[in-house]
Amino acid sequence: MNPSYAYESGDVISSDRVEGTTVYNEAGEKLGSIDDLMIDKRSGQVRYAVLEFGGFLGIGTDRYPLPWSVLKYDTTKDGYVVPISKSQLEGAPKYTETDVPVYDPDYGRRVNSYYGVTWLP
Amino acid sequence: MNPSYAYESGDVISSDRVEGTTVYNEAGEKLGSIDDLMIDKRSGQVRYAVLEFGGFLGIGTDRYPLPWSVLKYDTTKDGYVVPISKSQLEGAPKYTETDVPVYDPDYGRRVNSYYGVTWLP
Repeated sequence: MNPSYAYESGDVISSDRVEGTTVYNEAGEKLGSIDDLMIDKRSGQVRYAVLEFGGFLGIGTDRYPLPWSVLKYDTTKDGYVVPISKSQLEGAPKYTETDVPVYDPDYGRRVNSYYGVTWLP
Repeated sequence: MNPSYAYESGDVISSDRVEGTTVYNEAGEKLGSIDDLMIDKRSGQVRYAVLEFGGFLGIGTDRYPLPWSVLKYDTTKDGYVVPISKSQLEGAPKYTETDVPVYDPDYGRRVNSYYGVTWLP
């Protein structure tokens, strides 16, 4: 939780380092930042990085689960770049902090299908 | 980062929910709490949950990477239970916040081997 502990090291990156990282699209537009990671309880696989944007001072923001595989880290930007336009994001699966969906296989398939990513159970 | 966003939902658990969770051993002794997750950058697999304990007000604490697969969530304890005795933990791979090792395959093999967990690249 303390940013001073956040690091990358060898083949791994810490969750503290991922959380708060800015996300851009390929046009260089800022889409938001990573709020949280959704991890498959059984396998330990990170399924989604949850993009947060909108709202004011964290109030009323929307959350967009992005399949982990669409995130590419760009060292020059110190952020993630995703192949998602702003208009594509507008129609994407999203929720508010008080309205978290159940991440079941149906929801996973719906999210992945939106971004053209194969859903693997 | 905000605990109000931390949740479990369906098949997934959020990184915010895991971070800060208490870890017990099978004798019911409190070993510490999860500080951070170390994620394989390429695959998105959570390789280690980093157990933190010792120190005072977060100063001088030690960090012990635990293979994700050794953590079992116990709903009655609202915490993780691991098959690790206090004396076993004393000899385990650890580091301080200012001395993070490079998580390369050699380090991964060493950590996993200590806990009898197969290391898969």
